[in-house]
Amino acid sequence: MRFVNADGRSGLLVADQVFDLAEASGGAISADPTEAVFANWDAALRLSQDGALSGGRPVDNVQLGPPIPRPRAIFGIGLNFRKHAEESGMGVPDVPPVFTKFPTSICGPFDDIVLPAGHAETVDWEAELAFVVGSGGKKISREAAWDSIAGLTVAQDISERTLQMAGARQFSMGKSFDTFCPIGPAIVSLDEITDPSDLRITCKLNGKVVQDESTSDMVFDIPELVAFLSSVLPLRPGDLCLTGTPSGVGMGMNPKVYLRDGDVIDTEIAGIGGMRNRCVPEA
Amino acid sequence: MRFVNADGRSGLLVADQVFDLAEASGGAISADPTEAVFANWDAALRLSQDGALSGGRPVDNVQLGPPIPRPRAIFGIGLNFRKHAEESGMGVPDVPPVFTKFPTSICGPFDDIVLPAGHAETVDWEAELAFVVGSGGKKISREAAWDSIAGLTVAQDISERTLQMAGARQFSMGKSFDTFCPIGPAIVSLDEITDPSDLRITCKLNGKVVQDESTSDMVFDIPELVAFLSSVLPLRPGDLCLTGTPSGVGMGMNPKVYLRDGDVIDTEIAGIGGMRNRCVPEA
Repeated sequence: MRFVNADGRSGLLVADQVFDLAEASGGAISADPTEAVFANWDAALRLSQDGALSGGRPVDNVQLGPPIPRPRAIFGIGLNFRKHAEESGMGVPDVPPVFTKFPTSICGPFDDIVLPAGHAETVDWEAELAFVVGSGGKKISREAAWDSIAGLTVAQDISERTLQMAGARQFSMGKSFDTFCPIGPAIVSLDEITDPSDLRITCKLNGKVVQDESTSDMVFDIPELVAFLSSVLPLRPGDLCLTGTPSGVGMGMNPKVYLRDGDVIDTEIAGIGGMRNRCVPEA
Repeated sequence: MRFVNADGRSGLLVADQVFDLAEASGGAISADPTEAVFANWDAALRLSQDGALSGGRPVDNVQLGPPIPRPRAIFGIGLNFRKHAEESGMGVPDVPPVFTKFPTSICGPFDDIVLPAGHAETVDWEAELAFVVGSGGKKISREAAWDSIAGLTVAQDISERTLQMAGARQFSMGKSFDTFCPIGPAIVSLDEITDPSDLRITCKLNGKVVQDESTSDMVFDIPELVAFLSSVLPLRPGDLCLTGTPSGVGMGMNPKVYLRDGDVIDTEIAGIGGMRNRCVPEA
């Protein structure tokens, strides 16, 4: 199942058609793409599988927004790909470094990324695989981790490096400007994913490949992240976790490369989906 | 005005009586102590001032919960008192270090603090002044900052130091165990506070004063924090900001002192209120 936010409403994407999830479920599933959908994920899954959907619209005729626009928690994992930890000069961590992207930073998979006035000089890209919590819970074991997750999606962890590295190097603010967290286009249920430990993540800047790596380079894989996060706090339906970026970010290049007005970023994860975001100056 | 969460409902505390805010407003103000109350804060203020309240209950007969149990964002400010920045060995910051306490960590002003199994050895206290956003907004100037705030309350930023300092020293997880963020008992509106730049914060551990300092030792005062946070992201009604702790935490002592089962923490800010929390082992 591919869950989308179509014109602000919960939808199912089947081939090139979008179906309204609230209508298809007779109102049993929330029209609003909030945590309520993910608390009721199995019902959405059954609906997508029973083949009785009708009244689809061509996906090209709807606006795809962020599939979970207002998560109650967003967990960002730093330095979680070995080669990226090396290029960053901060080393491979022995405990997952967890920051947040404050939820107002979320935007849609084809929305513009606004380079903030006064902070436009050192904005960087980070293509990432993200998971969305389904049933969630506390103290989830590695073995039970996948059962607590609704699905996977594509994310960009856009980062203003100067602010990220200031203030005792607490990463969260530099990663929380408006539009710094594009996600989508779809949250893909796990039955559609063959091997999450070997998914290819690519990022292109103006058509040129800058990141291209498999999730097999991860330091902490998704079951380990679920176990760690839930050892501290309860994971709740709709919580979002960005699992870290592969090598190939702009600050790792020589000379460093940062995003400029008009740049186009294509972020793709094989089998999950692709986003395209254009960088624009703050109005 | 003193806004409280009384038995889970929005309330006004007047002397030793609690009045139900939804009833008193004829339903105009939300019974649920969520962001809706803070988006409508002026209406609550007027109601508290018109003197027509009736049907109060003795405060001793109600359970006081966290006055904003589910903020959409919690901002924690690190190293924001000069003497504390020195005792921590991390130095006085030139940009506010911002982490989050994930919202599930909130508990009430008289609730127990649970020392988590496997993480019970290095749990520390941090008495703090917190502000709650009222109207909020983006790019708020220092001068306009107070107008965007609903009021002030007392908080404890309980911190598991080992985890706080692990994982590339991202502070958020070590500060986000369940019950690690007691707040309350009341959110006090600004008309009741004479000088927020000189409020005395005290913390007692088992009756002995461990922290006792004025907010005049702050590196970044509240208007500056509002201006900084809102230069990056929109502040929204009900968002909570813990403004940093004075010197006198356990990890700054020689030898270091950490919280133990049965310890009682009294946290008080002059003119704002007092909390009492007991430390208990995880069941």
